[in-house]
Amino acid sequence: MAEFAYDIRDLKFILNEWLDMEEVFGLDKFKDNYGMDDVDFILNEVYKLAKEVVSPINKEGDHIGVKFDRGKVEVPPEYVKAYRFLQENGWGSANESLGSETIMPLTLYRAYNEMLIAASPALMSYIKLTTGAANLIYRFGTDRDREMFVENMLNGNWSGTMCLTEPNAGSDVGDAATRAYPTGDPGIYKIKGTKMFITGGEVDLSENIIHMVLARPEGGAPGSKGLGLYIVPKVWVNEDGSLGEPNDVTCIGVEHKMGLRASATAMLSFGENDNCRGILVGSQPDGEGASKGLAMMFHMMNESRIGTGHNALAQMAAAYYYAARYASERIQGRPFTNPKEGRVPIIKHEDVKRMLIEMKAQVEAIRAMIFKGFYYLDIAEHGGDREKSARCQGLAEILTPLIKTYSSETAWQMIGQAIQVYGGVGYTEEYPVSQYARDVKILSIWEGTSFIHAMDLVGRKMRMKGGASFSHWLEDRREFIEKNKNREGFGIEINNMEKAYNCVLEIRDLYASFYGSMAEKARLIPLYAPRVLICCAQLFAAESILEQALVATEKINAIDPGHHDYAYYSGKIAAARYFVNNILPNVYMQAQVIKSADKSALECPEEAFLVS
Amino acid sequence: MAEFAYDIRDLKFILNEWLDMEEVFGLDKFKDNYGMDDVDFILNEVYKLAKEVVSPINKEGDHIGVKFDRGKVEVPPEYVKAYRFLQENGWGSANESLGSETIMPLTLYRAYNEMLIAASPALMSYIKLTTGAANLIYRFGTDRDREMFVENMLNGNWSGTMCLTEPNAGSDVGDAATRAYPTGDPGIYKIKGTKMFITGGEVDLSENIIHMVLARPEGGAPGSKGLGLYIVPKVWVNEDGSLGEPNDVTCIGVEHKMGLRASATAMLSFGENDNCRGILVGSQPDGEGASKGLAMMFHMMNESRIGTGHNALAQMAAAYYYAARYASERIQGRPFTNPKEGRVPIIKHEDVKRMLIEMKAQVEAIRAMIFKGFYYLDIAEHGGDREKSARCQGLAEILTPLIKTYSSETAWQMIGQAIQVYGGVGYTEEYPVSQYARDVKILSIWEGTSFIHAMDLVGRKMRMKGGASFSHWLEDRREFIEKNKNREGFGIEINNMEKAYNCVLEIRDLYASFYGSMAEKARLIPLYAPRVLICCAQLFAAESILEQALVATEKINAIDPGHHDYAYYSGKIAAARYFVNNILPNVYMQAQVIKSADKSALECPEEAFLVS
Repeated sequence: MAEFAYDIRDLKFILNEWLDMEEVFGLDKFKDNYGMDDVDFILNEVYKLAKEVVSPINKEGDHIGVKFDRGKVEVPPEYVKAYRFLQENGWGSANESLGSETIMPLTLYRAYNEMLIAASPALMSYIKLTTGAANLIYRFGTDRDREMFVENMLNGNWSGTMCLTEPNAGSDVGDAATRAYPTGDPGIYKIKGTKMFITGGEVDLSENIIHMVLARPEGGAPGSKGLGLYIVPKVWVNEDGSLGEPNDVTCIGVEHKMGLRASATAMLSFGENDNCRGILVGSQPDGEGASKGLAMMFHMMNESRIGTGHNALAQMAAAYYYAARYASERIQGRPFTNPKEGRVPIIKHEDVKRMLIEMKAQVEAIRAMIFKGFYYLDIAEHGGDREKSARCQGLAEILTPLIKTYSSETAWQMIGQAIQVYGGVGYTEEYPVSQYARDVKILSIWEGTSFIHAMDLVGRKMRMKGGASFSHWLEDRREFIEKNKNREGFGIEINNMEKAYNCVLEIRDLYASFYGSMAEKARLIPLYAPRVLICCAQLFAAESILEQALVATEKINAIDPGHHDYAYYSGKIAAARYFVNNILPNVYMQAQVIKSADKSALECPEEAFLVS
Repeated sequence: MAEFAYDIRDLKFILNEWLDMEEVFGLDKFKDNYGMDDVDFILNEVYKLAKEVVSPINKEGDHIGVKFDRGKVEVPPEYVKAYRFLQENGWGSANESLGSETIMPLTLYRAYNEMLIAASPALMSYIKLTTGAANLIYRFGTDRDREMFVENMLNGNWSGTMCLTEPNAGSDVGDAATRAYPTGDPGIYKIKGTKMFITGGEVDLSENIIHMVLARPEGGAPGSKGLGLYIVPKVWVNEDGSLGEPNDVTCIGVEHKMGLRASATAMLSFGENDNCRGILVGSQPDGEGASKGLAMMFHMMNESRIGTGHNALAQMAAAYYYAARYASERIQGRPFTNPKEGRVPIIKHEDVKRMLIEMKAQVEAIRAMIFKGFYYLDIAEHGGDREKSARCQGLAEILTPLIKTYSSETAWQMIGQAIQVYGGVGYTEEYPVSQYARDVKILSIWEGTSFIHAMDLVGRKMRMKGGASFSHWLEDRREFIEKNKNREGFGIEINNMEKAYNCVLEIRDLYASFYGSMAEKARLIPLYAPRVLICCAQLFAAESILEQALVATEKINAIDPGHHDYAYYSGKIAAARYFVNNILPNVYMQAQVIKSADKSALECPEEAFLVS
């Protein structure tokens, strides 16, 4: 099997040549620790780790999977080593942790993290969840909670999980049935219930696992507003920080999944023996039975939802790089334009090139979109200018559903295409692409399904602050078009951008009219929401890669064709043109379909879907 | 796990209410053996077999897979039983065999066969290959060959394979390096070479395996025209029909595949000990070194390529039926239009309904398109009216690439959507849909990749007989539109059909202009071929399901809403409208992109795809 390889050049372009990283590194939070000088060094170091430490365990992990035996879960031993290596050496949770001295800008952290995810998505799921749990405690816990838990989670001693889903409460988390009962000890509750689909819920990576559990306290209101948040360690942590008794958390089993097979997805029973203790995070239910458990969890969600889209991006990118290299080595067939010529590497065939540039365009456009999102989050979280931070926060919130859904849905198609480039061997497990297809599929489901995000867009993000945030977002698009209207050599592209922009405007107004006549139009809102999301995502992705292409055009004009960066810049320009001229026109069609408001989906009787 | 279920009602509709099966059953070949009366009986019987005999082994087969040990391959024992059961009881190869008294019309055979494929794609691959090999011998072999091989293949005693691909010759089969050397015995050759990706190449289903092998005889020209065809039994068959010595065919290994894991995909070495004998089919090389081996194989290919599309359809249909039933049982969330109402089955949610009708529309439109193809093949092969048969042959040839490619590519997307309907549990192997996703992916690759079929369409099918066949095909589309222009209640749909039809006309003319200026335009031909194929396929699929909906409209007008067929007919009408109004508009966008003739894919330097 070919060695793992990744487009570190594109990551360097994003940080060194495209985003305003001077601004980010200049923020108070980062300026003493990081600067432009660190970018290449960090990326180079991690690329080595991705190749030498992480990617070698990926296939084996898929092959062996996790082993469940009497409540215990084992991952392949190489996973334990790699997990601890990354956490202990400062390449893991600490860099994304609010509680860490060395927290990096998301833009920087995520650039190197992308290569590690691509090298082993299953391994990195453990680190991601640990980061998330630690950040929850850091942000909402007491000083004592931080002291007792956070450091041990960041340094690899302990891992962490998020426990939301239950057998009867998935997308509808508000129906969770897990309960929290008061004890004599204030702040300490007895937890009782079952959680499922818990990534890393039981695993032998470390000596303890810190579960962040949503549960309903006594007196808690029904629905999501009544849920509280609890820290539930697998092994109780004594006052002095030492490990105490097991905390009555039982792993009932693990899922046998299509992919991510080295990532343990556990079903957990809390309090089977009425002896599971949890530490309340935040306050007790108010007079109306409301707790802020879910709100606290959701506070972390922008980042982890963009992170899920980023995870999908990393996987489709890795599959694309493997496929492209295979295409340059695999000899098969003769050129269409000259069939008498000798056999050629398949990359010479027009259709293989088309498949490759489609993957390249999607990968680079989605990556650009995602890093805009991380940039907005960096400014929103750590920026000094309050107005700008608020605006960036709004923009990040709009991008979140676009990134999460468009990236995860596109990844399934693009990795399918990577298999197609390989041909028959791509379908075998000897080559790496089929594993990516299997690994990636969950990402359109977890952290909120694609539909949940489509509704988040049309129901919340387009309407929040009376529609002001979405108007800002649209203004930015308009401004890009105006600014580049006379840009030489990109007339066709800007014209296509403008058409797509006008489609999105029309859709926004159409949706406003739906809300204006709910009696007749209400059901059209969810029905067409996924198409609205695709339109917004493709418009933004197209602009992002086109903006990069404009930078690349300036750069390429200053160098010779023999320059080592020449191919990179011309590839960027070609990929941007491909996206704008071949993918973006989908928006025109989607707009037409949305406007037609066909109701056949709603009119079809339910029984017509069912066979027996 | 839910029991296997299938839409037998739609299959009955196709044969009893839509296609002119009176005409087919009236053909000389069939009229003494089959009639309209048999349709329901046969479909009902096989549906029982699919549920009771075939589907129960499907998951286990995936789980256990095939076992390779020292040259021998074992399938799970239930596969041996099921294979023999179907073949011995007349539900297998015999009904599709030219050499069988009881050959059925493809329309009838394939209708019941679809349920068996859906129940276990891996099992049915063995039967399909055996049929193909037997039909090759029947059509091109001598009387002696037929006598020695065909009967034993049809009755389940022996199985069969097709051996085309080699490690260095896949899509480019003309580069095959396997050789055939003359022996003292006329008609008998020594075979030497390696074949890979051979479905059923080694397997313990029966006492012998008859390989149909492409090899180059001495004096054979280079390229595909020099390849001859040879019958190579795994165990030599003596003059008296008894089994003789092993025939020096060695299984080197089996592929570890993403799916179809109970289907043995073997690598075979022929003549490792210089002792592998093959029987020449057809004549020796002519004066120019040409043999007709590949032409003979390709003669069977229309059917098996449509069959591959049909295989994909069966799998996506099965995944859809599972997903729809799950959606009707899984309680989660509250209605968007009435959030205070209680929790509802997820089929009540607009987006779930949208996903289901998208699958339903694709499934039923593609099925309709495929059965038109089988109908054309029945008339072409067995019709009495020569002119009509020739026309049907031309139409079937045009449909072949559309069906093979559109169905297999769409299946990957639709089964991904079936997983999405299930949510998290769809990603686990406890539920059936992830296996279909894994099983189906190979179908866009085998029997010619999607691109090969796109080129077959634009390079051969659109141009054969000076473009006359494609003009016939277009005339039929035009006629459908004209005939239904004033059809009450379908004005929007016919209007959309006409727009799409005009797009395809434009594309046809554009492609003619490419051929007229090859010096500049040659590379656009392969570059946009896959989009041309999608446009033609969606136009034809839309028409096929809309034609069904017109029949359903007449039927539904004659029954009460309480009638047991009411839901079926209204579902058909809704699905047709959905396809025409929500899926078909893709053709307008594709046409626009094709006409734009953007060359960024070609302009991107190859090095820009490669990372290291």
